Amino acid sequence: MPLGTYIEEADAPPEVRAVYDDIKATRNTDYINNFWKILANDPKALRRTWSDLKDVMAPGALDALTKELIYLAVSITNGCEYCTVSHTAAARRAGMTKAMRDELIAVVGMANNTNRLANAYRVESDARFVEAASTL
Amino acid sequence: MPLGTYIEEADAPPEVRAVYDDIKATRNTDYINNFWKILANDPKALRRTWSDLKDVMAPGALDALTKELIYLAVSITNGCEYCTVSHTAAARRAGMTKAMRDELIAVVGMANNTNRLANAYRVESDARFVEAASTL
Amino acid sequence: MPLGTYIEEADAPPEVRAVYDDIKATRNTDYINNFWKILANDPKALRRTWSDLKDVMAPGALDALTKELIYLAVSITNGCEYCTVSHTAAARRAGMTKAMRDELIAVVGMANNTNRLANAYRVESDARFVEAASTL
Amino acid sequence: MPLGTYIEEADAPPEVRAVYDDIKATRNTDYINNFWKILANDPKALRRTWSDLKDVMAPGALDALTKELIYLAVSITNGCEYCTVSHTAAARRAGMTKAMRDELIAVVGMANNTNRLANAYRVESDARFVEAASTL
Amino acid sequence: MPLGTYIEEADAPPEVRAVYDDIKATRNTDYINNFWKILANDPKALRRTWSDLKDVMAPGALDALTKELIYLAVSITNGCEYCTVSHTAAARRAGMTKAMRDELIAVVGMANNTNRLANAYRVESDARFVEAASTL
Amino acid sequence: MPLGTYIEEADAPPEVRAVYDDIKATRNTDYINNFWKILANDPKALRRTWSDLKDVMAPGALDALTKELIYLAVSITNGCEYCTVSHTAAARRAGMTKAMRDELIAVVGMANNTNRLANAYRVESDARFVEAASTL
Repeated sequence: MPLGTYIEEADAPPEVRAVYDDIKATRNTDYINNFWKILANDPKALRRTWSDLKDVMAPGALDALTKELIYLAVSITNGCEYCTVSHTAAARRAGMTKAMRDELIAVVGMANNTNRLANAYRVESDARFVEAASTL
Repeated sequence: MPLGTYIEEADAPPEVRAVYDDIKATRNTDYINNFWKILANDPKALRRTWSDLKDVMAPGALDALTKELIYLAVSITNGCEYCTVSHTAAARRAGMTKAMRDELIAVVGMANNTNRLANAYRVESDARFVEAASTL
Repeated sequence: MPLGTYIEEADAPPEVRAVYDDIKATRNTDYINNFWKILANDPKALRRTWSDLKDVMAPGALDALTKELIYLAVSITNGCEYCTVSHTAAARRAGMTKAMRDELIAVVGMANNTNRLANAYRVESDARFVEAASTL
Repeated sequence: MPLGTYIEEADAPPEVRAVYDDIKATRNTDYINNFWKILANDPKALRRTWSDLKDVMAPGALDALTKELIYLAVSITNGCEYCTVSHTAAARRAGMTKAMRDELIAVVGMANNTNRLANAYRVESDARFVEAASTL
Repeated sequence: MPLGTYIEEADAPPEVRAVYDDIKATRNTDYINNFWKILANDPKALRRTWSDLKDVMAPGALDALTKELIYLAVSITNGCEYCTVSHTAAARRAGMTKAMRDELIAVVGMANNTNRLANAYRVESDARFVEAASTL
Repeated sequence: MPLGTYIEEADAPPEVRAVYDDIKATRNTDYINNFWKILANDPKALRRTWSDLKDVMAPGALDALTKELIYLAVSITNGCEYCTVSHTAAARRAGMTKAMRDELIAVVGMANNTNRLANAYRVESDARFVEAASTL
């Protein structure tokens, strides 16, 4: 049971309806998923979050699939079930195969492992890596 | 100051030396970075971690750059400074441009944001997403 | 299914009963919630945790509602479902409206976002902020 | 050393300059802090993040101080040093006293403690809390 | 519903079967738990993860029970439900009593609490502790 | 620079002095470490936290070394530098050898890895593990 009410299209006030319409047009679908229906309890948050997401996830220097893989990697790391499920589905739509998913999970697991090894020993950053990273 | 001693090549026992040599050959470099030098305090952990990393990060269904971007996204989310610096440098070597880095950071920030929105409202997974994600 | 047994009042040993009675008196309720019933498996932990919570959550420089909002913000960030549900209910009792809840969620999401932007770029603390924060 | 360049006002392109001017006008200050100067490497992220932050942190159902306290609680939980320092300073400007800060830290510590107790025993949500939280 | 298919022994290809056989022999059991059955979707990940786990969890300077307690402490902190349940069961098999479990949970809660107090005040490491920790 | 002032013994008010004296007596040392000196800014938090820590860390069903190892595992997972350094020193005092430390780090890394694998695939808890864990 969610901590709020899913706002269905039929019951949506105009400002929510406008966002729903943009989601459907942008994604070429008739389906509004639960995340937006509950965020619609706060119409300003709905509009801001959708606007940001559309902007951030639009293909640019990184393509749509790569962005979905990054989103999924973060969601798995944070243990967010809704986000893991929905972005696995979204990444699949964007072209993620089972083999890609399995490799992604292996990389996420490995990164979470070595993040703690580095923390445990308080490893100092190599000067050449700081140089390379800060002059990108 | 790290919580251990960096094991330099000149002081390394044979089993550590063997891993160092493989790192240099695999990466086509003469440089052993601090992470491996400190992990060398535990030669079995050094060998296991390097072997895993080489396996996991090898190009497969995902290319080397995509894997580095995923690694970086996790490291940023966890706030691991060493990992963020070193994998920013590694991703740059693998072809990450400044524009890609900036877009990656925007996606990571957005994912960490919506992960909490989904948690806060306890949004339930859409049946169609569960279906798509579990039959990948 | 919880990893332990809920200790009901009728079955509670005297030291647990004493804490239950104090919870009921302090909160002016007849209801002991699941968290305490399971913590009662470790009577010393029950007494210590309740004593701490009563102390920490008592109105002081911050009022009861503000303290509940802070508690809820942490619980959402950590993705703790029980804590998110129970402290949403507690904050509501303390006066949190739906509009307050929605704004709280927006702030929590935004903070989790910018926390990662700051990590990603390894932004250095401004001298004037360090000064202001350390001389509070 | 940050992983990028601080963009000073004198060197800022017009779209960055416009955001800087709005930050200064909104906050009634002449100072642009490091977070914005580094985010300026990605002008679209700068504009979007500032616009969101201005919107989210504006007083509404919650006053400015309460919002800063929530922001600080999340930043402490995530261990983000820059965010902890800068939002301690911001909360101080908004009226946070030393006594308030100390109580906030105690609540944050306690919440992080009980979040793990609830996780450890997999405590189930009380029906009455689910009801109260979902009908807010 | 998991995001993948549990690979049963009868349906397992030879390389998966070989790992299953080693799990059963090593643990002296006939039961393959869900974690391995789902990881079997990626046979290389299955082999690598099992090999690592067998290596890492083998008694050495730390005995099997102590290692399980550490594993459980991390899983509780990360809020991983599957890991908390399965490693509580594993720790019980290795000799963890109810009293030990309750004390472990108290320590985990306390550590999560003081981790945030230290972050909140940005406490600096004592020179003598850095010395002791780095010369171990 | 910490976000507060270290309260030295000479400047400590009586209630802080009393806690300092108990720390020195309990630990058989003359040294008060930075964590307590800064927590002394909030004398009630100092007394409560010390009292809890003394209680939780006292040998019981788990010995002092095991408790320190658990504390360290949590601190590494959370990336808390002060806590990692100080509890590495404390664990060393309690008998942790270099070999133990290295094995602990390997277990912590592995647990953080498999925690994410379990999250990624949303593995369901095995009925027999739930039974074993909930009837401990």
